[in-house]
Amino acid sequence: MKNAGVSFYTEWYKKHEKAIFEDYFTLLRFPSVSAQPKHKKDVLACCEWVQNYLKKMGFSTTKWEGPGYPTVFAERIVDPKAPTVLIYGHYDVQPAEPFDLWKSNPFEPEIRKGRVYARGAEDNKGQNFYSITAVRAFIEKNPQMKLNIKFVIEGEEEMGSETLHAIVLKHAKELKADHLLVVDMGMNSFERPSLSVGGRGITTMQVTLRSMDTDVHSGGFGGIVYNPIRALTEVLAKVIDKKGHITIPGFYDAVKGLSAKEKGLFDLEFDEALCRKECGARAFHKEEGYSQLESNFLRPTFEVNGIWGGYTDDGFKTVIPKEAHAKISCRLVPDQMPEAVNKMVEKYIRDSVPKGMEVEMQFYGGGEACWASPLSKTAKIMQEAYREVFGNCYIISCGGSVPITKDLAKYSGAEFVLPGTAQDIDNIHAPNESFGLEQFEKGFLLIARSLELFAQKSQS
Amino acid sequence: MKNAGVSFYTEWYKKHEKAIFEDYFTLLRFPSVSAQPKHKKDVLACCEWVQNYLKKMGFSTTKWEGPGYPTVFAERIVDPKAPTVLIYGHYDVQPAEPFDLWKSNPFEPEIRKGRVYARGAEDNKGQNFYSITAVRAFIEKNPQMKLNIKFVIEGEEEMGSETLHAIVLKHAKELKADHLLVVDMGMNSFERPSLSVGGRGITTMQVTLRSMDTDVHSGGFGGIVYNPIRALTEVLAKVIDKKGHITIPGFYDAVKGLSAKEKGLFDLEFDEALCRKECGARAFHKEEGYSQLESNFLRPTFEVNGIWGGYTDDGFKTVIPKEAHAKISCRLVPDQMPEAVNKMVEKYIRDSVPKGMEVEMQFYGGGEACWASPLSKTAKIMQEAYREVFGNCYIISCGGSVPITKDLAKYSGAEFVLPGTAQDIDNIHAPNESFGLEQFEKGFLLIARSLELFAQKSQS
Repeated sequence: MKNAGVSFYTEWYKKHEKAIFEDYFTLLRFPSVSAQPKHKKDVLACCEWVQNYLKKMGFSTTKWEGPGYPTVFAERIVDPKAPTVLIYGHYDVQPAEPFDLWKSNPFEPEIRKGRVYARGAEDNKGQNFYSITAVRAFIEKNPQMKLNIKFVIEGEEEMGSETLHAIVLKHAKELKADHLLVVDMGMNSFERPSLSVGGRGITTMQVTLRSMDTDVHSGGFGGIVYNPIRALTEVLAKVIDKKGHITIPGFYDAVKGLSAKEKGLFDLEFDEALCRKECGARAFHKEEGYSQLESNFLRPTFEVNGIWGGYTDDGFKTVIPKEAHAKISCRLVPDQMPEAVNKMVEKYIRDSVPKGMEVEMQFYGGGEACWASPLSKTAKIMQEAYREVFGNCYIISCGGSVPITKDLAKYSGAEFVLPGTAQDIDNIHAPNESFGLEQFEKGFLLIARSLELFAQKSQS
Repeated sequence: MKNAGVSFYTEWYKKHEKAIFEDYFTLLRFPSVSAQPKHKKDVLACCEWVQNYLKKMGFSTTKWEGPGYPTVFAERIVDPKAPTVLIYGHYDVQPAEPFDLWKSNPFEPEIRKGRVYARGAEDNKGQNFYSITAVRAFIEKNPQMKLNIKFVIEGEEEMGSETLHAIVLKHAKELKADHLLVVDMGMNSFERPSLSVGGRGITTMQVTLRSMDTDVHSGGFGGIVYNPIRALTEVLAKVIDKKGHITIPGFYDAVKGLSAKEKGLFDLEFDEALCRKECGARAFHKEEGYSQLESNFLRPTFEVNGIWGGYTDDGFKTVIPKEAHAKISCRLVPDQMPEAVNKMVEKYIRDSVPKGMEVEMQFYGGGEACWASPLSKTAKIMQEAYREVFGNCYIISCGGSVPITKDLAKYSGAEFVLPGTAQDIDNIHAPNESFGLEQFEKGFLLIARSLELFAQKSQS
């Protein structure tokens, strides 16, 4: 199935592998954790490194500044009339906590049994760096080929892309492209190589419930004051009913759903055994009327991503804390709007707490869900590249979010897809995140080969 | 109202005040946090200091060893036939976390506006040390008075007194006494000087719910796996119903309750305004059929003292954690047994979690509730001392627990009371714990004067 084009890149990769990994590891060593202010210098240093790397590849580069971390923009224009591919990635990573669950330093990459272990090994430094490397190889093979290439690599994806959202309109002209590749998604496994055509949206927030000005002793005040932990569990426990549906008034009102024909294009076969193997899952969510994979791809969720309050250290402390907290995210599907969902959740919480309980809400960033047609030219060409590299191509959607996709698609005017070789086994956002050497190489081949196909087939 | 006996002690206190506070502050500087293994050396050093202090006062002292921290036992036998007072206290303290909420170092006492600020300033180093000082003064005034005095000062009260529980039977003979003073309780205010005749029991535990082997990304797994935080909120939220009753099957079965006549002896007037002032409380628990103070004194509770799971640091992390945890305590009343309640709670949790969710329970120590008659000789003599020092004496019960009281009463053969000058304003177990200079002095006067009364009136 693999053609001559792929073979060239396989050879090229072998020849350059050592140097590629030296650079990839340098990128991974930056603790570019955008959510933690203590890492500000590291995030900025990482940005600088990425920009310089693309500059050395012959791109004209610039930093798009905004309220937060800058976005690296780079372009190589061969012919203004030629088709243009825009590749999206991000150089920031999730926090690595809890550190004690890592088998090796999250910011000192280590290869064990064919996998690179580090925070960002896959998300998104791995996928971003094989894309950059694919572009290098493509240019080396086809220095004159009529294809313009642009990169937009941001530094706040892991906290909602607020800065890029704020400045993207201003840069609409520079973003103009025909094909947008958001390389931040993946597939279930190489046995079912899949191209994602959409991702859910998200909105993220923090709630604090407070019933006192100070922590008190549970002997002296137990039975008297309303424990804010109790109030928090009461409020959160009511959100999802026994059928797995979310009870927040209005939550589903804007959900469009898909037609049976549209659904038919998707690979919705949930492999429980694989899921058990990947993360040891033994208790499953079930939304009545939907398979688990359908719930993950095509349905919105309400998830408590963190909860804390009171004494949580060794031993025991008989305290009633003055406050309790939770971090909450909702995954969204078309046409749910983050702002509207925020308001519904806040109203639900305020209506649910006991009398006198203080409610404090803090909203982080978010983004709408966004779907592309699997029948677009961009999707068709990318499917061809998948078939050349993997022998097959299924269509999927993604449970996760790349919140900026919608804006990038809108302002670039491009048709988009979300190619990638990420797999659940990569453990992204968790301790011991990793990326397989084979995933890295296959991702490289996929992007490199797709660029040739975009050059050759865009006009046809 | 104050008689000549009290006046002597007032004078003595003035004369020795400076030296007393030097010693008291030395005691407070030991970070004797029994629940935190990192403080093992400090706990043992504190134990040593207390033993030496009593030795210097002329007591014969020993350390009772057991599986955990030792108990200091000290006695001064004047005449084997004379009445014996046994005084209980503890030299360990609660953890001081969170440190950043303290206005001064919790282990470097500081006097501000007539109050000593430090972890243990009141609980129990303050109350224990004024008791020791009262004994010093009593002996100085009455070196030959026919009263034997014993101290039992343990090092694990804040974690359930497991060691003392384990060894108390072995030392029954040494404990023999007529009057047991458990000096670890207090009163609402000096306006309502009160003697406590009982305390609730307690049982403490930790629950962990686990649905996976590893944390996962809420995009890739949201809608698929059962979030253990969700399961934990569902389980905990159901425990207390809308009427404020605990729904765990069998929980109230062993509760005896009090007769109307018994209740009539208690001061059950709840001062909501005072409670608002003390800790800024603005949301109150209400158990149908009981006043808040009654719920606190005479009813059992289920309280979540700590909860944690997932990402709890700055910013946001879209994770579904593999597990979630809660620290739980139940305050108990006669005749609820800690072991039986543990079993009920565990069964309730195991029966309540969704299919596949793993439950791990860890049990810390506990103790039964324990009540004495306000009409016993010990209680009557102590009420007389209260009247001499404060002009009045109400009878109360305590929401908190001194879990070892029951065993000490049983093996010493003594009638017991729980005198003390602690007040809610002391903020025990919380940041900025403090003890008023007036509380310290009044406590000293109360114990010193009571010793004379015990010597004079025990035989009558």
